[in-house]
Amino acid sequence: MVASVGSVGDPEQAPRTDKPEPLAFSDPAYREAVIDLLGAIGYGEISAFERLAEDARLAPTLEDKVAIARMASVQLQRVDPISDRLRELAVDPYSVMASFRDSFDAFHRHTAPADWYEGLVKAYVGDGLADDFFREIAAQLDAQTRDLVLATLQDTGHAEFAVERIRTGIADDPRLAGRLALWGRRLMGEALVQAQQVVAERDALSGLLAGGVDLPGLDLAAIGRMFTRLTERHADRMSAVGLEH
Amino acid sequence: MVASVGSVGDPEQAPRTDKPEPLAFSDPAYREAVIDLLGAIGYGEISAFERLAEDARLAPTLEDKVAIARMASVQLQRVDPISDRLRELAVDPYSVMASFRDSFDAFHRHTAPADWYEGLVKAYVGDGLADDFFREIAAQLDAQTRDLVLATLQDTGHAEFAVERIRTGIADDPRLAGRLALWGRRLMGEALVQAQQVVAERDALSGLLAGGVDLPGLDLAAIGRMFTRLTERHADRMSAVGLEH
Repeated sequence: MVASVGSVGDPEQAPRTDKPEPLAFSDPAYREAVIDLLGAIGYGEISAFERLAEDARLAPTLEDKVAIARMASVQLQRVDPISDRLRELAVDPYSVMASFRDSFDAFHRHTAPADWYEGLVKAYVGDGLADDFFREIAAQLDAQTRDLVLATLQDTGHAEFAVERIRTGIADDPRLAGRLALWGRRLMGEALVQAQQVVAERDALSGLLAGGVDLPGLDLAAIGRMFTRLTERHADRMSAVGLEH
Repeated sequence: MVASVGSVGDPEQAPRTDKPEPLAFSDPAYREAVIDLLGAIGYGEISAFERLAEDARLAPTLEDKVAIARMASVQLQRVDPISDRLRELAVDPYSVMASFRDSFDAFHRHTAPADWYEGLVKAYVGDGLADDFFREIAAQLDAQTRDLVLATLQDTGHAEFAVERIRTGIADDPRLAGRLALWGRRLMGEALVQAQQVVAERDALSGLLAGGVDLPGLDLAAIGRMFTRLTERHADRMSAVGLEH
C-alpha cells in the first residue's frame, strides 16, 4: 500500500480539517468502506428514531410512551457526530445515508411489530444485534473511526427499561413468552438477511470484511467466529428477558 | 386569603423540597390551576413529539426528516422540567398529563396534515399559537411557575426552518399559498375550540382566567384583549411565511 497523507481523495473536495487523516485513508477502497459503514450506521439511527417513535404510539401508559420517545431521541442525537465525520470525509452525509434506505426500510417492513411487546423486543434485541455487528466491523478499522463508531453505539441504559418491561409482561401473561421467542428468532433471521445483502451490494464493505491485498480483513473462519459471537450475544439478550432462543 | 407556607397541601403528600412554595399555593384553587396548566403543557409537548415524529415520515429529503425529528426531540426534552415540578407539587405527573389526552388528541385528529407542507404549517403556526396561549396564562402566575413555563416555551430556532421551507415551497408552487392559507385559518379555529373546551372543563383554570375572591384574574375586556393579541401574533406568523390570514 503506497500510503501518504497528501494523496487522500480529490483535493477539490478535500475537507478543511486540521487533523491529519489516518494513513489507511490513502487507500480509496478503505475510505469508501468507512464512508459506507458510517452511512449505514447513520441511516440506522434515523430509522431507529422513526421506528421507536412509532412504537411509542403503542405504549400502554403515558410514562412508557415518554420512555420510548426518549430512546428515539437518543438515537437521533447520534446522527450528528456521524454526519460531521462524513462531511470531513468530503461527502454529503445525507446522500450516503439515504443510499441505505432501501435495506433498512425493507428490514423494518418485514418486522413490523404487532403490539407493544413485539416493539420492545425489537428495540432491545434488534438494536443490540445491530450495535454488535457495527462493533465487530469497527474492530477492523483505524482508531479514529473505531472510537467514533463505539461512542455512537454506547449503551444508554435504555435496554434496562425494555428488559424490565418485557419480563413484567411475561410474568403477567406467560403465554407471551412463546410468541416473543419466535419473534426474536425472526428478528435475528431478517437482520442477517439484510446485513448480508448490504455487505454483498457494497464492494468496499465486503472488501473490508474479506480483506484484500493491503488489508488484513477476515478469513472465512474469522467471519464464522464473528457470526458465532453475534449469535451468542443475541442468545444472551434473549435469556436476559427470559426467552428461549 | 389566609396564606401561610405551612398550610400547603396535605402534609402526608407534601413533597420533600427545601424551596418554600410561593404564597399563592396556599390557595388550593390556585395550586390546582397551576397543576392543570403544567399538565396541559406537558401533554402538549408529548403530543407535539408524536405529531412531529409522524410528520418526519412525510419529509421529502433525509435532511428534512432529520430536521423535523430534531424538533420532535426538543419538544420531548421539555417534558422533564414539567414532570419534576409536578412531582414537587406532590402529584403524579403522568396522571395529570394524561387527563389532557382527549382534548389534544381531538385537536390532532381534526387537524391531520394531508402532506409535508400542511405538517410544516401546523408545526410552525400551531405550536406558536399554543406557546402564545401558555405565555398569556403564565403572565398571571407566581414568578416561579412563570419562569418554568417561559423556559419550557423558549424558542429553539426551529421556526426558522419551517419558515424557510414553507416560503420555498410557495415560491416553487404558488398555488400552495391558497391551500395553506385556508389550512392556517382552520388550525386557528380548531385550536380556539379546543382551548376553550379545556378551560371550560377545568374550574381551576377558568377560575384563574376569570379571577376570584383572592385572585385578580382577567375581566371580560382583558380576555378579549388577550384573544386579540393571540390573533395578531397568529397573523404575523402567517405573514412571515407569505400567507394571507
